[in-house]
Amino acid sequence: MTTKKHIEVCFTPALLDLYEISTKNVVLIDILRATSAICTAFSWGVKEIIPVGSVEEARQCKQNGMVVAGERDGVVLDFADFGNSPFNFMNDKVRNASIAYCTTNGTKAIQKASHAYRLLIGSYLNFSAVKDFLLNDTHDVLLFCSGWKNRFNLEDTVFAGALIEQLLLDENFTTICDSTMAAQDLWNTAKPNLLEYIQKCAHRHRLRRLGLDDVIEYCHTFDKTDIIPILNKDKIIPFGEMC
Amino acid sequence: MTTKKHIEVCFTPALLDLYEISTKNVVLIDILRATSAICTAFSWGVKEIIPVGSVEEARQCKQNGMVVAGERDGVVLDFADFGNSPFNFMNDKVRNASIAYCTTNGTKAIQKASHAYRLLIGSYLNFSAVKDFLLNDTHDVLLFCSGWKNRFNLEDTVFAGALIEQLLLDENFTTICDSTMAAQDLWNTAKPNLLEYIQKCAHRHRLRRLGLDDVIEYCHTFDKTDIIPILNKDKIIPFGEMC
Repeated sequence: MTTKKHIEVCFTPALLDLYEISTKNVVLIDILRATSAICTAFSWGVKEIIPVGSVEEARQCKQNGMVVAGERDGVVLDFADFGNSPFNFMNDKVRNASIAYCTTNGTKAIQKASHAYRLLIGSYLNFSAVKDFLLNDTHDVLLFCSGWKNRFNLEDTVFAGALIEQLLLDENFTTICDSTMAAQDLWNTAKPNLLEYIQKCAHRHRLRRLGLDDVIEYCHTFDKTDIIPILNKDKIIPFGEMC
Repeated sequence: MTTKKHIEVCFTPALLDLYEISTKNVVLIDILRATSAICTAFSWGVKEIIPVGSVEEARQCKQNGMVVAGERDGVVLDFADFGNSPFNFMNDKVRNASIAYCTTNGTKAIQKASHAYRLLIGSYLNFSAVKDFLLNDTHDVLLFCSGWKNRFNLEDTVFAGALIEQLLLDENFTTICDSTMAAQDLWNTAKPNLLEYIQKCAHRHRLRRLGLDDVIEYCHTFDKTDIIPILNKDKIIPFGEMC
């Protein structure tokens, strides 16, 4: 009998300290919109993304001549080149660029999980690539939801559930984690009509209020890219290009 | 248009600080087994329950001649009169007793939420009493799950979902909280066969390993009592007997 690989889910950064991550493949999830934007950026040829945690740090990057993508609470920072929408990265001008990236939830979560064995960036846009990587690797898995200001959110959890469903089809994976079981059940509730289900999420209401809900359908589209962004020291680069 | 009452759910004590509770009816939930045991105790005539946070504090209560109910990780403390099973309180000897009570999750959660406007003790055993109280009162509601060592657990969340379903049938209640929506969806998944669903909970496996799973069916029985235990200063007493 071989030892099975365990799957766990962490619902918000406020709970991350409860999990041992130094031996695990951690998949960071921020569907609306950071991890969807990062996957889009690499599929359009961005060279690297440097997560920055504070507005002040982002401002410093801008003063140092870097391209800066940044927002707070869904609003583009006034000094940034553009905001956190995946659509901003669909632009030939980003090819080979190094981009400093500052978001409400995503960047902080990246920094909090930077001691993971591997920190992979997951979204529907690279769903199958992430799934296949986890299936073929030998490490336990933590699906790490960015949440909303340290609270649970549905859109990240539902994505975790979609991934869990696929991983648990493989006999090498198992779970005893209640969060994992809950995420899978929520995915099962959501999947017959994913976009309608996401309509009811609190974060969607926030985006709609800000006129930013045009990206929701795009951010729930499977498999637009095979690239898995990964944190390498203090930068995110495409997996396979690590030194 | 009257202002609607809001419902929120907090999944674990580690997230409680994200919620403003001083103006809310907070319902503490620890189905397996603290809040089920507390409801049982009052239905058997216990006068008051004093939550104690540490094993040392419980030992001190014992040395001072009090009745002590206490456990850690499902195992009865060696100096306690009995443990955390609701069955321990089904005993005429507890009538009119003051009981010091120390549990793994429940007591700590009580202390953490002691600044709530009201802290009510909820379980399936007093489900309708709690529901009717919340429907007739004017305050917002936070359903506060004890979880398992600060992690999310399914059995507390599913109970929260059962209560949410009933409250949202009343037009005076509303929610914009993703945790609340998730809890309701998990309840909908669980309710066709509640006990079978609870079988898969991680905490149930812990109880089974310890030979303590005989209480699970009892702890998922609706409406054995009309008493709502409530925290009054540092003691839990039946609501209606507050000074």
